[in-house]
Amino acid sequence: MNKDKKEYPKVKPIDLKDDYSIENLIEEFQQSGVFGPGRVGKAVDIYAKMIKEKAVIFLGLAGALVPGGMRQIITEMIRKEMVHVIVSTGANITHDIIEAVGGKHLRQIPYKSDKELREKSIDRIYDAFVDDESFMKLEDNLRPIFEDIWNNHKDENNSLTLPSYKWLELIGERINDKNSFVRTAYEKKVPIFVPAISDSILGLHMWLFSQTHKILIDDLADLGKVQQLAWDANKAGTLFLGGGVPKNYIFQSRLMSPKSFDYAIQITMDRVETGGLSGASLEEAISWGKVDEESSMVTVIADITLVLPLIYAGTLAKTK
Amino acid sequence: MNKDKKEYPKVKPIDLKDDYSIENLIEEFQQSGVFGPGRVGKAVDIYAKMIKEKAVIFLGLAGALVPGGMRQIITEMIRKEMVHVIVSTGANITHDIIEAVGGKHLRQIPYKSDKELREKSIDRIYDAFVDDESFMKLEDNLRPIFEDIWNNHKDENNSLTLPSYKWLELIGERINDKNSFVRTAYEKKVPIFVPAISDSILGLHMWLFSQTHKILIDDLADLGKVQQLAWDANKAGTLFLGGGVPKNYIFQSRLMSPKSFDYAIQITMDRVETGGLSGASLEEAISWGKVDEESSMVTVIADITLVLPLIYAGTLAKTK
Amino acid sequence: MNKDKKEYPKVKPIDLKDDYSIENLIEEFQQSGVFGPGRVGKAVDIYAKMIKEKAVIFLGLAGALVPGGMRQIITEMIRKEMVHVIVSTGANITHDIIEAVGGKHLRQIPYKSDKELREKSIDRIYDAFVDDESFMKLEDNLRPIFEDIWNNHKDENNSLTLPSYKWLELIGERINDKNSFVRTAYEKKVPIFVPAISDSILGLHMWLFSQTHKILIDDLADLGKVQQLAWDANKAGTLFLGGGVPKNYIFQSRLMSPKSFDYAIQITMDRVETGGLSGASLEEAISWGKVDEESSMVTVIADITLVLPLIYAGTLAKTK
Amino acid sequence: MNKDKKEYPKVKPIDLKDDYSIENLIEEFQQSGVFGPGRVGKAVDIYAKMIKEKAVIFLGLAGALVPGGMRQIITEMIRKEMVHVIVSTGANITHDIIEAVGGKHLRQIPYKSDKELREKSIDRIYDAFVDDESFMKLEDNLRPIFEDIWNNHKDENNSLTLPSYKWLELIGERINDKNSFVRTAYEKKVPIFVPAISDSILGLHMWLFSQTHKILIDDLADLGKVQQLAWDANKAGTLFLGGGVPKNYIFQSRLMSPKSFDYAIQITMDRVETGGLSGASLEEAISWGKVDEESSMVTVIADITLVLPLIYAGTLAKTK
Repeated sequence: MNKDKKEYPKVKPIDLKDDYSIENLIEEFQQSGVFGPGRVGKAVDIYAKMIKEKAVIFLGLAGALVPGGMRQIITEMIRKEMVHVIVSTGANITHDIIEAVGGKHLRQIPYKSDKELREKSIDRIYDAFVDDESFMKLEDNLRPIFEDIWNNHKDENNSLTLPSYKWLELIGERINDKNSFVRTAYEKKVPIFVPAISDSILGLHMWLFSQTHKILIDDLADLGKVQQLAWDANKAGTLFLGGGVPKNYIFQSRLMSPKSFDYAIQITMDRVETGGLSGASLEEAISWGKVDEESSMVTVIADITLVLPLIYAGTLAKTK
Repeated sequence: MNKDKKEYPKVKPIDLKDDYSIENLIEEFQQSGVFGPGRVGKAVDIYAKMIKEKAVIFLGLAGALVPGGMRQIITEMIRKEMVHVIVSTGANITHDIIEAVGGKHLRQIPYKSDKELREKSIDRIYDAFVDDESFMKLEDNLRPIFEDIWNNHKDENNSLTLPSYKWLELIGERINDKNSFVRTAYEKKVPIFVPAISDSILGLHMWLFSQTHKILIDDLADLGKVQQLAWDANKAGTLFLGGGVPKNYIFQSRLMSPKSFDYAIQITMDRVETGGLSGASLEEAISWGKVDEESSMVTVIADITLVLPLIYAGTLAKTK
Repeated sequence: MNKDKKEYPKVKPIDLKDDYSIENLIEEFQQSGVFGPGRVGKAVDIYAKMIKEKAVIFLGLAGALVPGGMRQIITEMIRKEMVHVIVSTGANITHDIIEAVGGKHLRQIPYKSDKELREKSIDRIYDAFVDDESFMKLEDNLRPIFEDIWNNHKDENNSLTLPSYKWLELIGERINDKNSFVRTAYEKKVPIFVPAISDSILGLHMWLFSQTHKILIDDLADLGKVQQLAWDANKAGTLFLGGGVPKNYIFQSRLMSPKSFDYAIQITMDRVETGGLSGASLEEAISWGKVDEESSMVTVIADITLVLPLIYAGTLAKTK
Repeated sequence: MNKDKKEYPKVKPIDLKDDYSIENLIEEFQQSGVFGPGRVGKAVDIYAKMIKEKAVIFLGLAGALVPGGMRQIITEMIRKEMVHVIVSTGANITHDIIEAVGGKHLRQIPYKSDKELREKSIDRIYDAFVDDESFMKLEDNLRPIFEDIWNNHKDENNSLTLPSYKWLELIGERINDKNSFVRTAYEKKVPIFVPAISDSILGLHMWLFSQTHKILIDDLADLGKVQQLAWDANKAGTLFLGGGVPKNYIFQSRLMSPKSFDYAIQITMDRVETGGLSGASLEEAISWGKVDEESSMVTVIADITLVLPLIYAGTLAKTK
């Protein structure tokens, strides 16, 4: 008979009362401790630890986070200094600005086919929608922003070459919406890197502007900056909302640093078995020296929009 | 320009305070209304509606729900009359009884390989564990339960033929644990059907007992009973925790009824594209006459253990 | 510098000519050796080894295999003695018999909604279809089969109690279609266990028949038989097409044997992280003593209908 | 009774002989016509149609395609003019060049933990591996390539600003390996766009070079070029191997064109329900005007490495 077995913690069945808070829920998750609840509970612990130990926290934004209702939480995470460096797809930036300029993400639109939506000028993002009017508002607002940036920052040769994080900083400065995370990042001096900025509607508008103004995005200067931030971090952690470019870009930022990431949380529905980085285990990253065996890390297998609110509110409660 | 677009609801970004309750969270989910949160929010609405309209609610139990910490919630759902008929895999019954007789589900057991676990007599269920001691307790407790059932219920020919729901009722009567859902179902007169009872450790113990006692499980009598319950239900709803036999068995229970299911909620990670019933859309069930086009239904794509607590607590709050 | 690294095999890029055979394809897969192709290649090796070493091979059938076009391959596997024991869901048996009696699985049916299909009396299984006419043919043909079985096998008390594998044997004897796997299994003396036979249209018809004839399915006798077959097997292997009841039932058949399974192949799209058995890794089964650390095993993450043909034809080529 | 039902094609069960070719296999898939085989069969038809109708074919490369053994097939697709424009992640380019300069992707490396791999300087990509030696070879070879490009192409101001497709063309010109797709694309004048080139080891080496040489990647010039190619295409088709940046970048290339894509094939394991573009249905793209309702399109839900070989060889056979 194996005596030490008695020492292992039990899976305490989750038990909830009507008036339980999210904090209570997370405690129940942590005492259950297995499957999805165990992973969410661990994510809260790791996130709280990152904050307490003053790690530099890198946030990766991929997938349809803004259309999926995550905009305010991202903004609050920046405002509450739960995040210090952001790497994003172009789409999330585009959709943040759309909301900032009065555009809308809609829902519960009945339709018979995507063709019907096309005829109504409504674009679909699974069960969220955005109408062409919103994209027109984006266009109307981006043009004067680009003009203003140009007028204030063009160099003596009548050209403007900036890394993406500088472009985002200057755009954020010109956005008038306290709920925008691009704006809030500007205010809180959180750099936003968008390595594939050209791969977005925002990028298309930059291209349009580039037809009449000599502008460039200096990707390599971005790389220098993000590596500097990673190098300078005594402790560093990362929260990956989805995979894609942001995940790889954040991980490679510390490849040349003497130290790897100390904490890593990823939320994804992608599978590990296809070999792609988006679904890759965090353990695999140990072999690359991106994280340490001693690093705290957890992968939550879930729709981000379902569990980010829990992890955010749980971490808030735990660190207040 | 399409005027009526102004009428569509917006995706309201989820916004949470430190002290928010699960009820608040569900409200935020419902106002966001898309992706996973939209589905969970809709599941709460449908579940609350089922209860308010006094539907007969069929619960399907598949997957490792008890090792995954869902036992107490299932018990509470029965106790609070949120569930009226249960169809379960044999495994969930087995694990409920294991906990009832003092067995344990464990976690955070460090191990190098499954071989090491084998040597330690610990069985793994993803990141939950159960030791052979617990299975021995099960064995020690089931034997006298079977003896007692035999002594009280064998017929004049010294044999005992019962449908699974009767076996479960008699077992539940003999379980001394208020947190057991098998016990609670007995108390609340909620029948539990286990169509593949032989496909479980419980089934193996019944087989052992059958070597010395003439017992039979009358699957066809089960079928008659479950169809009667479905036929008699004025309104009927179903909550599928996973797919497998329970999902199909519940759906087919109303195939011969004049009416199909009025409400359906399923929680699953299985995919629709392989064609299997476990991942099949609820809409597909319309073509079979299992649900109506007018039925309220929603599929939540998530780890059951993560979202059942939310749906349960949200529905509680909404119906109190 | 790590000298021994030179010894590891390379991932040879897959290279195909126009006229390559499936055998060539499998060889390319094996020389690439990673991700999906590596798994399929390993499955072929293990299957060929099972056959060469004269293992008793248990086949698990779950999911919509017959509507998905796998019927002939299953039949051929039985005919060619690549399979010796079958455990199936009731649905796969039902759909095999539907085709045997002239019913059809259809495709490319245009429809606007599942309601329209309902009105046309067509049932949908993802993108396959079966019409109510086929179910009527099933009914018309099952009734005389049950009558004939009854007349020939009822006991002196005017009742008939048989384990599912006996029911299937007697049904198979009465099916007149050489492409039916239920028929072919009868001919090749391959027992088919259907632990949840009541959970199917076939089961509903047995129930209907039971309203006028005293019939019973003896699940516990099935359990005795399958365990005997597992016990008697010197070497035993398993091929799981999907999870569900068949996977668990096969695995538990050797729980009481002195030996566990020597080979295991599973094909599934289910995920490991939810803790359910259908998606569970084969490695986890080591902790339960269902397979050995020394067992040859592989999980192929794919739509069964896509890779079973490759594994079947590849194994045929390798063992001819 | 519905007469026209007789007209619908049947699901013909897949039937294979020992010596069947991949062409035969695809025919069987097409006659089965449902689930995965139906989708692969349709992909072959669409791909063959794209080629016959002389569409400009855009190929998206995401995920670990080269470590997963797809390098030769990509090269052959370029050589055989089955592909005319490529959009790739930086990683696939990096791994192609690694193999071109004598680096290796390995397999079947036994290890106890990723830490052990780290100590051995072996990086893991699921079950494929690449050693640091290979990365050193990459470094040793890239430096002189960059020097040579610099010497031949720097402008009068001692700087070099090029879009990614030009960088790739100049690199391809300097690669001495006929099996390299970067080289083959150069030879066949197939432009390769890498919108997030900085997000890769290749990008890191460009950054290193930029520390001593004034180089820039002109993302916006890339955007102009890809849109020109899309605009000029009379008919246009796309084959998405995975999602990510390549999928979005290809789709947005025709957003400003008068015409959308006429054909689209995507292979992915990503799910539709999370709302991210990688898993998004092709039908959703109709609402955006990226494809037409009349477009031929299909999504294959599978590990790319398993089905690309089938689709490639099947299309070859069909178009020879």
